[in-house]
Amino acid sequence: MTRPPPRGRKARASQGTPAASPAYVTRSLPYYAMLDDEALARIEAQSCRLLERVGIEFRDDPDALRRWRVAGAEVTGTRVRVAPELVKSLLATAPEEFTQVARNPARSVRIGGQHQVFAPVYGSPFVRDLEGGRRYGTLEDFHRLVKLTHQLTPLHHSGFVTCEPCDVPVSKRHLDMLLAHMTLTDKPHLGAITEKSRAEDSVAMARLLHGPEVFDQHCVIMANVNTNSPLLVDKVVTEAAAVYCGAGQGLIAVPFILSGAMGPVTTAAAIAQALAEAMIVGAYTQLVRPGAPFILGNFLSSMNLRSGAPTFGMPEPLLSNLVIGQLARRLRLPLRCGGALTASKLPDYQAAAESADSMLSTILGGANYVLHAAGWLEGGLATGYEKLVLDADRLGAYEVVLRGFATDDDALGVDAYGDVEPGGHFLGSAHTLSHYTTAFYEAQLSDSNSVEQWEEQGAKDAARRALDRWKCLLNEYEAPPLDPARREALLDYVARRKADLPDAWY
Amino acid sequence: MTRPPPRGRKARASQGTPAASPAYVTRSLPYYAMLDDEALARIEAQSCRLLERVGIEFRDDPDALRRWRVAGAEVTGTRVRVAPELVKSLLATAPEEFTQVARNPARSVRIGGQHQVFAPVYGSPFVRDLEGGRRYGTLEDFHRLVKLTHQLTPLHHSGFVTCEPCDVPVSKRHLDMLLAHMTLTDKPHLGAITEKSRAEDSVAMARLLHGPEVFDQHCVIMANVNTNSPLLVDKVVTEAAAVYCGAGQGLIAVPFILSGAMGPVTTAAAIAQALAEAMIVGAYTQLVRPGAPFILGNFLSSMNLRSGAPTFGMPEPLLSNLVIGQLARRLRLPLRCGGALTASKLPDYQAAAESADSMLSTILGGANYVLHAAGWLEGGLATGYEKLVLDADRLGAYEVVLRGFATDDDALGVDAYGDVEPGGHFLGSAHTLSHYTTAFYEAQLSDSNSVEQWEEQGAKDAARRALDRWKCLLNEYEAPPLDPARREALLDYVARRKADLPDAWY
Repeated sequence: MTRPPPRGRKARASQGTPAASPAYVTRSLPYYAMLDDEALARIEAQSCRLLERVGIEFRDDPDALRRWRVAGAEVTGTRVRVAPELVKSLLATAPEEFTQVARNPARSVRIGGQHQVFAPVYGSPFVRDLEGGRRYGTLEDFHRLVKLTHQLTPLHHSGFVTCEPCDVPVSKRHLDMLLAHMTLTDKPHLGAITEKSRAEDSVAMARLLHGPEVFDQHCVIMANVNTNSPLLVDKVVTEAAAVYCGAGQGLIAVPFILSGAMGPVTTAAAIAQALAEAMIVGAYTQLVRPGAPFILGNFLSSMNLRSGAPTFGMPEPLLSNLVIGQLARRLRLPLRCGGALTASKLPDYQAAAESADSMLSTILGGANYVLHAAGWLEGGLATGYEKLVLDADRLGAYEVVLRGFATDDDALGVDAYGDVEPGGHFLGSAHTLSHYTTAFYEAQLSDSNSVEQWEEQGAKDAARRALDRWKCLLNEYEAPPLDPARREALLDYVARRKADLPDAWY
Repeated sequence: MTRPPPRGRKARASQGTPAASPAYVTRSLPYYAMLDDEALARIEAQSCRLLERVGIEFRDDPDALRRWRVAGAEVTGTRVRVAPELVKSLLATAPEEFTQVARNPARSVRIGGQHQVFAPVYGSPFVRDLEGGRRYGTLEDFHRLVKLTHQLTPLHHSGFVTCEPCDVPVSKRHLDMLLAHMTLTDKPHLGAITEKSRAEDSVAMARLLHGPEVFDQHCVIMANVNTNSPLLVDKVVTEAAAVYCGAGQGLIAVPFILSGAMGPVTTAAAIAQALAEAMIVGAYTQLVRPGAPFILGNFLSSMNLRSGAPTFGMPEPLLSNLVIGQLARRLRLPLRCGGALTASKLPDYQAAAESADSMLSTILGGANYVLHAAGWLEGGLATGYEKLVLDADRLGAYEVVLRGFATDDDALGVDAYGDVEPGGHFLGSAHTLSHYTTAFYEAQLSDSNSVEQWEEQGAKDAARRALDRWKCLLNEYEAPPLDPARREALLDYVARRKADLPDAWY
């Protein structure tokens, strides 16, 4: 048997370095066509009925109502009813795909079309690791998670609130998070939205980081906002649209619907409502600035009928992942949906099964920007260190899936049987030798050794191996270079703003 | 908030009783169309080249060579070269779908077409559970695994070697296994193949169990055989075809190809070889008896390039699962492929991620009969008790996925917004109340409780909860009724054969 030459620790470690990393994935794999055109049109018709007849509430932002009135919508109090044709004509000015420019151009990501971008979990107040257990996230945790995201090549995007740094006052937290994303990694990231001034800080710091020329001509930062389902858009959304899109930057609008609570309990109805909500916000971004980058978002979850608790990775949201991509493509809009979601508290069988079914349906359905693609635990309440590296390892496998495989004569092995007889083997054959280095995905955290070898190495389960891996990665972390003047400008900005802002914990 | 009425332990336990169980799944979900017709035709053309030019070795069975010569194949020594047209015309007499009749007619399964049947792991010499660790399987283990399979409703079929009962002599083992499948469950099952006489015992006992009338007119037992890849068919296969198909019973032929060893290292080439091997065995079953039920099988695995060890749940076999269904449907043959496969030693994150990606691609691709759908660990070397019940819980979720969802006006919630305002909630709405009992899959082993509740209940991970569940199921097990005369006839047969056979351990 001729074994391929062994690759040692050095080759393995290099998966964490920027040079080896593709900035994003461009798929060859076809999309999964779950529903036919007639069924898709029925869902769209229901979305249109909601927009036109029930209407959407736009609260606490007179500017938003004014914009809709000027555009020709029917505005009654805070209720906005819009003709579907108007919504669609507004959405038509949003780009079908666009580039979010990273401060390292090699890290810029293409969003939309055949492209897929993976980002880590967003918004968890807690963190969990095998040694430290579950605890509130701190700024130290946040820094470590940004560093790990930087090192994990299947994560193309740094996200934003990888955990809440709960030891920093809420009023100042966004500044520390922005500074970390801008200095500890050169991958692209999102900005803050919780208050208008925080959105403005995000955009201002992005301008400092990228310089006014790049900033004015490119999307360099995006914000992720949630509608208040059902059918309510509050000022967090409209102000974020005004600040980010007003500056030519991107917005992701995501209805977060627990079916049976914030939307109807049936999957088709929840999808139709989510589509209506995302469409109206998308249309609004184009009222603010035609051509502003917009990502149509979707986040459906199901419910445990005994307790009312949200569940994740279950079949109903999995089916919605397969359909929402079809709907987004009919609108020619980039899509955010899915992620490696689970209700599990630990990186165990439950976490992996739910995350895998959620993620595989996400990529087959054709999500372009996937937040929560790694690290999510406990319904999003906790970021798992081990879960982050385990999920990233599977994201690498999904990249291979997205590339599909060739069926030309060489890939078909038309000449592979010259030196192999029936009953023989291909281990040293010419065809094998010419393909083996690229033939298989090399998982970092899957153990395929014999049980004896595995026992000799400590009989570690996947979570325990993941603990070893993230500690090793953090030891190897090196900050990407950053122009000292820009770093100084960012530090100044943060110091100045912190001096202005009171410590507030809400 | 109006909560759905709680369902207690009784409702939960009842999922294990036969009455609640659908005998198999009929899908509404479309198949995933991974390759276009041109690419599929290229793969088929390569399979045809292998059949016609390289040929297939048929060893140690002069009857097989004689049958091929009579049919018009070119036979040189033990090498059989067959015109693709002949292979395809033979395959055309195999049924596109058929029923395997169970001794309880409510358990009969439909195999082929839109139908999906799930069966447990097959062939593991070892078993593992959280308390007992890893050890050789025994007849007691085997009995417990057959009982659990009987109780787990998402498993429609009892399989055969759920673990090897290593404490029984090899020469007699098949008799004890057959007796267990025939008495401890009323689900359909497979028979033995390792020697011709064992295949004959299987068929003879099936005839006793079902009675000659049912036996002669229906498929009541099937056998699963592997080709000796590459391109070699030994007498285990041809004798099993003679015994099973000769009696009108079913055969599943599965090339087991570790890409780069028993087949070319590229995915397309391995698929083409597997297709050629399965096609030739299928054609052979129709030489034995036109119309005999035949399932085209596929089992590709990838390799760890550092060690040469097989890996499972990796992207390359996942892609093959998506394609092989397309190829089987072009031949109008039922398909076996995939399963909940993993190289992991434990029911951990690795096991679940690999199993989920493997199974979801299996069902999207359209496998009709899925062996190894639950319980597989360690590359098939060990059957996991916890893994069995965990995988079965996810199979229940896949059943929901396979059903898809409705998009009629009621499912779209056209009237759902009458009693819900924007910003309100659907928790007690008429639409929710009329749908909630069927809205969501109810997982048995996924914990969606708050972290506080979960800690109060012992902070158990999924594997630990699975240990509780299989023990509870075994406590609740009740044997399905069996006609005493038939039971007596089976016991007599086994006693007589055991008296005739020497104790042999090979």
